[in-house]
This record gives sequence, C-alpha cells and structure tokens, in this order.
Amino acid sequence: MNEIEYMKLALSLAEKGSGFVNPNPMVGAVIVKNGEIIGMGCHEKYGQLHAERNALAACTEPPGGAVMYVTLEPCCHYGKTPPCTEAIIESGIRKVVVGSQDPNPKVGGKGIRILRENGIEVVTGVLEDECTALNEIFFHYIATQTPFVTMKYAMTMDGKIATYSGKSKWITGGQAREHVHRSRLRHAAIMAGSGTVIADDPMLTCRILGGRDPVRIICDTRLRIPTESNIVRTADQITTYIATTCEDQARLKPLTDAGCRILTISEKEGHIDLVELMVKLGEEKIDSILLEGGASLNYSALRAGIVNKVQAYVAPKIFGGRNAKTPVGGAGIEAPEEAFMLRDRKITVLGSDILIEGEVLKDVHRNS
Amino acid sequence: MNEIEYMKLALSLAEKGSGFVNPNPMVGAVIVKNGEIIGMGCHEKYGQLHAERNALAACTEPPGGAVMYVTLEPCCHYGKTPPCTEAIIESGIRKVVVGSQDPNPKVGGKGIRILRENGIEVVTGVLEDECTALNEIFFHYIATQTPFVTMKYAMTMDGKIATYSGKSKWITGGQAREHVHRSRLRHAAIMAGSGTVIADDPMLTCRILGGRDPVRIICDTRLRIPTESNIVRTADQITTYIATTCEDQARLKPLTDAGCRILTISEKEGHIDLVELMVKLGEEKIDSILLEGGASLNYSALRAGIVNKVQAYVAPKIFGGRNAKTPVGGAGIEAPEEAFMLRDRKITVLGSDILIEGEVLKDVHRNS
Repeated sequence: MNEIEYMKLALSLAEKGSGFVNPNPMVGAVIVKNGEIIGMGCHEKYGQLHAERNALAACTEPPGGAVMYVTLEPCCHYGKTPPCTEAIIESGIRKVVVGSQDPNPKVGGKGIRILRENGIEVVTGVLEDECTALNEIFFHYIATQTPFVTMKYAMTMDGKIATYSGKSKWITGGQAREHVHRSRLRHAAIMAGSGTVIADDPMLTCRILGGRDPVRIICDTRLRIPTESNIVRTADQITTYIATTCEDQARLKPLTDAGCRILTISEKEGHIDLVELMVKLGEEKIDSILLEGGASLNYSALRAGIVNKVQAYVAPKIFGGRNAKTPVGGAGIEAPEEAFMLRDRKITVLGSDILIEGEVLKDVHRNS
Repeated sequence: MNEIEYMKLALSLAEKGSGFVNPNPMVGAVIVKNGEIIGMGCHEKYGQLHAERNALAACTEPPGGAVMYVTLEPCCHYGKTPPCTEAIIESGIRKVVVGSQDPNPKVGGKGIRILRENGIEVVTGVLEDECTALNEIFFHYIATQTPFVTMKYAMTMDGKIATYSGKSKWITGGQAREHVHRSRLRHAAIMAGSGTVIADDPMLTCRILGGRDPVRIICDTRLRIPTESNIVRTADQITTYIATTCEDQARLKPLTDAGCRILTISEKEGHIDLVELMVKLGEEKIDSILLEGGASLNYSALRAGIVNKVQAYVAPKIFGGRNAKTPVGGAGIEAPEEAFMLRDRKITVLGSDILIEGEVLKDVHRNS
C-alpha cells in the first residue's frame, strides 16, 4: 500500500463517526511500521478520544519509529481531551502524514508546527480535497459559528416534487431514500416548514439501524403547527425547535408543555429572519441542517443566503402538470443571470435515480 | 486489435453518416486481412453506396480471404443500390462479423443466410447493443412507419425552463447547446408549438458547420402562427410543415404562399391529434423528430404516446419561482404510480451541465 491508500483507509475510518461526533470533525488515523499496519482508529463519539489516541491505543506493537496517516491536522489544545500532539510526541512516531489542515483558529497549523519542533517529519496535503470535503460541516461551523445548510429535495425528471394533487409517495426508489436517511444521520438537525408538517405530518426521524435521530427545526412564522402532529407528539423524545415570530404565551404553552423548544425570531419580509435563526441555532451548537423544505421555504432560504449545498435526487419519471409543485418556489429570480449558481457539481447514481449535488456560490449581494 | 476494437472503429465510421442517410440506417464497415486494416467505409449519404461497398472499394489490396466487420447485417435486396451481399460474395471475403441484425422485414436475417449459403462464415452479436442503439431511429421507423420522437428540454436544477418572466436565454452552457445542435442534425425534423414561435420567434435551424437544417414542424391547432415569424419567412428555404385543424383556405393562403406545407389534422381533446400527425409525417418519409416543445405540447405528446425518448439537459443553477414554467405542463398525472417512466437512463456530462436521457416505457393504456 502507498500513502494514498493509507489515507483512503483513514478516510473510511473517519466516516464511522458520521452523526456521532458533531460539532467535532470526523477523523481517522492509520499507523504503519515497516510496511505493516499496526494500529487504526477514528474519533467515534463527541467527548470521547480523538482518532490519533484511539489508533495509538490500538497498536499491536510499540509505535516508536512508525508513520501515522491522519485525515486532519492533530489538535494541540486542551478541549474535552488533552492535545493529540502530546500523545504523538510521546509515542515515538517518526513521521505524520496529514490530509487537511485544521481551520479551527485554536489549531490552524500550530499542531503541525509543534510536531516539527519535536523532530517529527510532517507531510501535508495528501488527499487534501477528499479530507476537506469530508468535514465541510465542521470547517464551515468553525469559521462562521452558524450551521452548514444542505437543501435536499427529490424531484421527477420534469422538476416536480409532487403530482398536481399533492401526492409525492414515492418519487425516488429505495436506494435514494436510504441515501437521504444517511444524510439525515450526518446532519445535526432537519429543518422543515409548518406547511410540510400540516400537509404530510412527517416524523423527520432517521430510519437507519444504529443511527440517531437529528434535532428537528420547524419554521413556523405564524405558529400554525398542529399540537396533534407527529412532530409535537414526539417532542418529548426528540429535541424539537419551533422557530416563530409569535410571542403569545397562551398559544405557545401547549407546545412547550409537549416538550418543544421555542425560538422567538424577528420577522423579515413576512417570514422569520432565517439569518437570525441560523445564528441562534449556531449558539445551540447545531453545526449542520438538512433542509427538507417545501418550495416556499427553499426559496426563502436561498434568498437569505443560508444554503451551502443543494442535493437534488432526480427520478427517471415524468409527472407533468402546470400546477404540480416544483422544488423551489417563491417569487423566483427575473433574469437568468441572477440565478443561484452551484459549483463543484457531483453526480451519484443511486439505482435508477441520480443525485446531483453542488455548493451554492455565495453572492454577498443576496444576503441583505 | 481484437474484434471488439474493429467493431468500435466501424461504429465510429457509421456515425459519419449522421444527419445525411435518413431514413436509411447509419452503417460502418472495416475490412481486415492478416491483422491489417485494408479497407474502411461508411454509408455517407442517402441514395449513395452502402458501407460495405465503400469499404470494398477502398481496399488497398485484394479482399480475398479477408474479414469484414460491419455494424449492421448486409442488405440482400435491390433498393437504390444493388444488394451488398452480392458484392461481399464476389469479393472473396472469408468471414463477416455483424453488429446488429436488420429489423427491415425485407432483410431480417436473410442477408446473413445468403452469406452462409455461399460459404462465408458469419459471426453475429458483436457489440450488438451499441450497434442497435446507434440506429434506434431506423429500427423504430422500419417497424412502425412513424417517426422516432425525442423530447428535449433544458432546465435548471429546480426544474424550470424559464424565469417567472419567461426569460430562458441561457439556461445551459455552450457545450450543452452544441450537443443540442448535433441532436438536431441527427433528427430529420424539429417540432415545436405555435406558442413557442409566438414567444421566442426561433429559427430552429442546425448551427453546425457542414450540417443540414432539419425539416420544421409547427403544431398549430388554431392557426395562430404569425406570417411575419422567422419560421414562415424562411419556409421557402427550409421545408416547413404547419399541422393544424384549420381548413379555412383564406387563412391558409399566406402560409402556403410563403412556402409552408399544410397538414390538416383532426382535433382530439382540443388539440391536433398527434398520433394522426405522426402517421402523416411517416408517409412524408420523416423518420425522426426532435420535439422542442413548450410545457403544453410536451404533455400532449407524452399523453398521446408518441414520445420514444426524453433528453433533459440540467444546468447547475436555480431560478425558483412558483409561476416559472417547467418542462412538462398540461393537467399532469394524479397519482405517482401513473408517471411516465423512463428506462435505460443514461448520463452525459457536458461541461458544468449534464444530460439525462431515457427511453419512454410504452404503456398501451395511455395511447388511447
């Protein structure tokens, strides 16, 4: 195996932390001595040991003189656990190969410098793009203190998210729906509008064995959510935020009694101010949101400039219908050159469906 | 080179006839002797020599004892040119490797039988799927005597073919638009609705160097097309059909004077009967149509069961807009399981855009 292959292995180990380490990054580490892997590990759960320490603890022989492949620059600060740089230096590791550098202002190249100052050879930038992509959520949250927002929808090949009568079960096949549940696992929270709750009465849970349910956020400007909805009925089991402009305690009481947490948000253009909501959710340590909104909420979110990534699942079928709903509604832009542009477009085949993803190109003029 | 590689070469030769051989098939042939290619050829233009005769004529040494690789079963009947089987037998070719069998009832396995009866070894089915796909138009037309219809549209990643104000220039980038022009070259005709003519005043020509303009067909139930439109003004240079229910000679005269050909079609559910139109166009030797309709015509065409293939160009951008048009309108289907299903889904990356293609799964219940 060469260094690329060791780093790929470290990446696949890192993925095991998906859904359990937020708001920490996913990290994997592989330790190699005389061409043999002697230890592997990942950051498994928030608050527990980092990947480097887990890999060192798993070593089948003393790691002195070995090489460590790690997807992210080792930390050098005291957080929930002591710095990994210390453990590496003590272990006698000869060389550290790093995927991406830590964007955390507390670390930012300092971990690498400390290792070098202690005579350890450090190679950086191996599979850097892959390593950075793996932690897009962490990198965004560290930089902005607001959640990374992924807008997700499933549509037909003619751009419909439902038939004209509102039916949408199902547009995509099993493999695509399974993929959505993995995406729900990766994000700390799911966000939807009260319109979706009223129309579909969803649970917004994560149906993967061994998974955990994401926090639920309902955008509910006028407080329309029914107290008998599945979301409210299960709010005592799954953390649920209702973001609303309503401050009428009498109307809010049934929801707080049911276990919902209320976020009071200012109104902006007839809708809760989504930028303000993101700041508040960031303070609540929510680092990532899967936005499963209807057409109106999706447009408001794009317009507010809070969307980082779009995931469109496209099914090879056609509904037709001039009145059938599309993924993004609202007023819409007027001239094609004002379109919300996506970059780094990626295509994934999921059975007969496909997933098209892209990062939203940020335009400062929009976020006003 | 092995037989797969020789057949791939023959396939790429066949493609050279694209746009010039309709309603004949595209065919390529490669002749190999002692491991050397001694002759190659394709069917270049309707009415001219077939690929087999062109390859034989191009041979740099006598073809006796050689092997011929040909994408389609050689013909054995007298058409515009004498049968290819005769030429092959006379040439002393030892073995013929065939891609796909001819669906033409006049040939259908008979060409292969004649070759075998004359002591020539015949191998069939080499790259059969690719060879058949190349001539999907020919195979369909031979079997049904009606044109093969490809429905084409360009949309944003949220399923819009224009902004809410109707602007659509441009949705896709240069590479995708170039691909559309190649597609126009491959089809004998382009079809659009009078709504598109009124809104965009297009030319519907093929802007490829050395290409030829396809025949234009305008579906115009109520005869609304303006006589000053680009289509009508150029009808004396490019064959143009107007399909209408209108039989008022006074209203038709300015169009026929301008060079338009009128196809009088019965009305069905408030629209020209598209099935009847396909039969009439088949009689006019139009073997293929690229349908560049608006949302209503697209839905009518799917509903009538005349669409064979869908080509959706998807751009990585979002327009939004609850009133922005989508590719397929009309009433639409009511339940997701009634959707028009596409099979053999294929994805082509065209710069930052992608093309998703699929064959429409024919459902006899629709075509009523």
